[in-house]
Amino acid sequence: MQIGMIGLGKMGGNMAERLRRGGHDVVGYDRDPSISDVSSLKELVERLQAPRAVWVMVPAGKPTRSTVEQLRELLSEGDIVIDGGNSHYLDDQRHAADLGTHGIGFVDVGVSGGVWGLEYGYALMTGGEEEHVRRLMPIFETLKPEGEDGFVHAGGVGAGHFAKMVHNGIEYGMMQAFAEGWELLEASDAVTNVPETFKSWRHGTVIRSWLLDLLVRALEEDPDLSELKGYAEDSGEGRWTVQAAVDHAVPLPAITAALYARFASRQADSPAMKMVAALRNQFGGHAVASAEGQTGKGADAPGADVTPPVEVEG
Amino acid sequence: MQIGMIGLGKMGGNMAERLRRGGHDVVGYDRDPSISDVSSLKELVERLQAPRAVWVMVPAGKPTRSTVEQLRELLSEGDIVIDGGNSHYLDDQRHAADLGTHGIGFVDVGVSGGVWGLEYGYALMTGGEEEHVRRLMPIFETLKPEGEDGFVHAGGVGAGHFAKMVHNGIEYGMMQAFAEGWELLEASDAVTNVPETFKSWRHGTVIRSWLLDLLVRALEEDPDLSELKGYAEDSGEGRWTVQAAVDHAVPLPAITAALYARFASRQADSPAMKMVAALRNQFGGHAVASAEGQTGKGADAPGADVTPPVEVEG
Amino acid sequence: MQIGMIGLGKMGGNMAERLRRGGHDVVGYDRDPSISDVSSLKELVERLQAPRAVWVMVPAGKPTRSTVEQLRELLSEGDIVIDGGNSHYLDDQRHAADLGTHGIGFVDVGVSGGVWGLEYGYALMTGGEEEHVRRLMPIFETLKPEGEDGFVHAGGVGAGHFAKMVHNGIEYGMMQAFAEGWELLEASDAVTNVPETFKSWRHGTVIRSWLLDLLVRALEEDPDLSELKGYAEDSGEGRWTVQAAVDHAVPLPAITAALYARFASRQADSPAMKMVAALRNQFGGHAVASAEGQTGKGADAPGADVTPPVEVEG
Amino acid sequence: MQIGMIGLGKMGGNMAERLRRGGHDVVGYDRDPSISDVSSLKELVERLQAPRAVWVMVPAGKPTRSTVEQLRELLSEGDIVIDGGNSHYLDDQRHAADLGTHGIGFVDVGVSGGVWGLEYGYALMTGGEEEHVRRLMPIFETLKPEGEDGFVHAGGVGAGHFAKMVHNGIEYGMMQAFAEGWELLEASDAVTNVPETFKSWRHGTVIRSWLLDLLVRALEEDPDLSELKGYAEDSGEGRWTVQAAVDHAVPLPAITAALYARFASRQADSPAMKMVAALRNQFGGHAVASAEGQTGKGADAPGADVTPPVEVEG
Repeated sequence: MQIGMIGLGKMGGNMAERLRRGGHDVVGYDRDPSISDVSSLKELVERLQAPRAVWVMVPAGKPTRSTVEQLRELLSEGDIVIDGGNSHYLDDQRHAADLGTHGIGFVDVGVSGGVWGLEYGYALMTGGEEEHVRRLMPIFETLKPEGEDGFVHAGGVGAGHFAKMVHNGIEYGMMQAFAEGWELLEASDAVTNVPETFKSWRHGTVIRSWLLDLLVRALEEDPDLSELKGYAEDSGEGRWTVQAAVDHAVPLPAITAALYARFASRQADSPAMKMVAALRNQFGGHAVASAEGQTGKGADAPGADVTPPVEVEG
Repeated sequence: MQIGMIGLGKMGGNMAERLRRGGHDVVGYDRDPSISDVSSLKELVERLQAPRAVWVMVPAGKPTRSTVEQLRELLSEGDIVIDGGNSHYLDDQRHAADLGTHGIGFVDVGVSGGVWGLEYGYALMTGGEEEHVRRLMPIFETLKPEGEDGFVHAGGVGAGHFAKMVHNGIEYGMMQAFAEGWELLEASDAVTNVPETFKSWRHGTVIRSWLLDLLVRALEEDPDLSELKGYAEDSGEGRWTVQAAVDHAVPLPAITAALYARFASRQADSPAMKMVAALRNQFGGHAVASAEGQTGKGADAPGADVTPPVEVEG
Repeated sequence: MQIGMIGLGKMGGNMAERLRRGGHDVVGYDRDPSISDVSSLKELVERLQAPRAVWVMVPAGKPTRSTVEQLRELLSEGDIVIDGGNSHYLDDQRHAADLGTHGIGFVDVGVSGGVWGLEYGYALMTGGEEEHVRRLMPIFETLKPEGEDGFVHAGGVGAGHFAKMVHNGIEYGMMQAFAEGWELLEASDAVTNVPETFKSWRHGTVIRSWLLDLLVRALEEDPDLSELKGYAEDSGEGRWTVQAAVDHAVPLPAITAALYARFASRQADSPAMKMVAALRNQFGGHAVASAEGQTGKGADAPGADVTPPVEVEG
Repeated sequence: MQIGMIGLGKMGGNMAERLRRGGHDVVGYDRDPSISDVSSLKELVERLQAPRAVWVMVPAGKPTRSTVEQLRELLSEGDIVIDGGNSHYLDDQRHAADLGTHGIGFVDVGVSGGVWGLEYGYALMTGGEEEHVRRLMPIFETLKPEGEDGFVHAGGVGAGHFAKMVHNGIEYGMMQAFAEGWELLEASDAVTNVPETFKSWRHGTVIRSWLLDLLVRALEEDPDLSELKGYAEDSGEGRWTVQAAVDHAVPLPAITAALYARFASRQADSPAMKMVAALRNQFGGHAVASAEGQTGKGADAPGADVTPPVEVEG
């Protein structure tokens, strides 16, 4: 079928290519004219026959919002906008409502696949109305991996990005679990052959997984990871997962621990631990002076810290 | 080669069977005479030719300790005891030292494989001296799965059980990550098709793993897990992992969160939350009386909580 | 000075009373005509002389938003709106911007004090422009407790509610720490006299605090808290603290643990632990069938979980 | 009454002095002859009249164990040994059993008080038999602060150190809660006057406490703690608290978070985060080679990670 693709970077470009190889008619638009089929969104829309399908593959946040706003003005009733970027699911709901006032449909797609997607296909989690998803199925069939899994219509608008967000939250927790286990093995002198131990787990164990495969490869390249810094970025999805959990009163202790460990990894020095150090310092002698000063101003005054400080922790 | 197997339960019995199928000469001993080849440990030892190899496959703790003590008296210099149970790695070190005074070798083996091990092999993590492990390799080769992975000589005495312990700790963290993600998907109304969403993740995603396969199967049998109680036992290994981490000053926030979630799942009512509820109650009016009483007995007495309570949380 | 007070419930009513006792001219409005001085917001505004100060003391969210919107239309340039409720600090910034378009000032105040505030004063954390806060100082001086502490101009618009939010976050963490310590003492049989132990800590220890005083009182009334359920609500501030931390990439593990413990306390049965239980069930024999089925359909198919499941945890 | 004091360092020396001021007859022993009243433990014991009371105030672990062993040989039936150091409660139980075989009593005392104890008294948590504690009450009465609190007979042998251990665990949690709140305030630009905000909380709030007083003092000396490193030691009690909780299946998420934050503060670079970084690197392109290599060696081999890696997180 015919589709417009907005954003021809690494992801959008490869997806356009995979769709073309699958026999679809793709009209691509990118700010970079050297890779764009058309010179403007307006021209893109004009090149497509109604009812149109336009896939937006640009960064989440402002770029996606601005693109959706422009499409609302350019498209016609019956057209569909697909957001395949990493948008927040609440943004999806706003976009769908906004486009809906013009009779334009909206489908959100969480896309997993990275650099291998062109060849092996992309895992797709979709959200939107049944009818809209059905109309786009030829596209999804081409983009997804062969075989039965790798595609789901997860629910209404926002469900695709919500599912992808939770997927990434689970990923954080799993990575953290492996990382903690590795640190403990390294810290103990009980196990002297750590890379081989992980390698042995690839068969016949409960924890065998693609992440374990990656971990084994990483240790093959750098057996004690001495060439790496303990520094990890986090993507929006990890934060959104925790915030959505708090919104829904769902406890996520392991996933949150994973997120916080990443936050901490980017601090040269922990501010909170400065305060713990400061409190420990206060336990010592030099707080005596202040304490006496306070006592001097009246130990019986409301709220004075009457009893003197009395503890050296540890 | 020839080996003695002590403990012919589900695990020991199957392992003996797999060894026999592999051409080894296994003499089995069990307290249950109906499945035992010999009538006593003494007879077992007499039936084996020196230098002997005796595999202990009985519950960790007292049963293993007591068996090792008896073997110390029965075996001779040059023999080897293998502990294939779930012993703590510090127990291994005690057992090895103890047997070593009689010139008897010791190898600990963390075994993963459960009911499928007989047919597909057992993942083995071993600890002990190079020479001892080498002598036992014919046994390990038969027990382990075919192919290159599934076996490791992880280090000195205790390394096998330490590695297995950490494996189980990682497993706790991974299970918790999936469980949290599932709870969040269920709690939100964004995703209406939760089982299909998990199923779709089995291909092309970062989190594909054997645990995900199990999770999908569980949801196929009971799509919202309504037939289950949120109650999870924990095995010793999870606790030992956390305690070993504390001993080594290694932070394990995600794995510990997983362990604590299991602890909490077995409490009908959280004691800690009773105290939080009690404190919240005290914020309210009925603490006034006590407060006034205290004020009455002398607001300027050292340590009296002079300033009145002043906050209703929330 | 003259001030309008909107919302004459427990908090607003007592604050109006404390202000009157302090010599201020308070015009109160409440939806309940039996306690209201005026019949409408419009009349309230008419009764006040410009430049006016109007204190909004209604529930956060829609009621506050709606009140601010109405005041924007009724008030004049140079007037000031004070939000003393529990609004989110981002709401404050929206309200200030909105009122600012009409030349109306805005000050947010985090108020702590509950039922004892009328007599002992309210702890006040304020946010807004220097000049606005200065104009309201006579009001703040009367409301705050006597003595030097209990009032702060914490920063610009939103700072008052942000400070109050963090205060409550810290409170969550402290309550949780005490609750955990109590649970551990109760769980162990080492300490047989738990209430007396807490009581003894009220002097000469690092943890002496008003919360400890409350805890001791609670145990005096119900020594093992057997009359309470382990069920704890959470107010918005705890959630907002965690969400603000995630927004700022600040790790808050202890405060988040406290929030999650409250979430969990309200679940009859933990959904996440249902999934853990389900996975543990899958470790057992009845997963064999599915595993064989899968193998049957082609172990060499991409992504098939080739190796059979092989682990019984524990 | 008469008492022997072993260990005349900062703590033991001050306690001996406070006891003398209170009219007791103290015979002190220290390895340093310049401060010791006697030249050996043997002489100490000879100088005391039966039934004797000997207070051991030396470092926990080996020094205390060795001292108790020597006293077992030197003392007589009916004497009492008091361990006022920071011993583990399980050590207490071993010491009591050991001394009990010679008819010697044992009382453990958790002592809080630090440098202010000499003047203001020490908070004492005691464990042991009713009769032993009763005999020592004249000593405890002199050591403890004046007033009703600051002393507890918490239970049998070990209860004193168990109570002190939990006290320190709670302390960890409270310090962490304050530290997290401070970090969040500093990270946000909402509150520009952080030290004043904490100071204002000293009255009329839920979180007022001695730790808050210390925190305010610390910020008075160094308003943004810029002179401190975010580095915090941990004492044995924090670790023991977590390990005791794990032994008793009690979830301690906030206290454990506090302990782990200290562990992490002492790592120049987080090993776990190196692994997370390594995994994230593997998501990228350079894993392709390995992946292709694997595929090359036979995608249908059991356990080969058949499907290619397909995700760039974030």
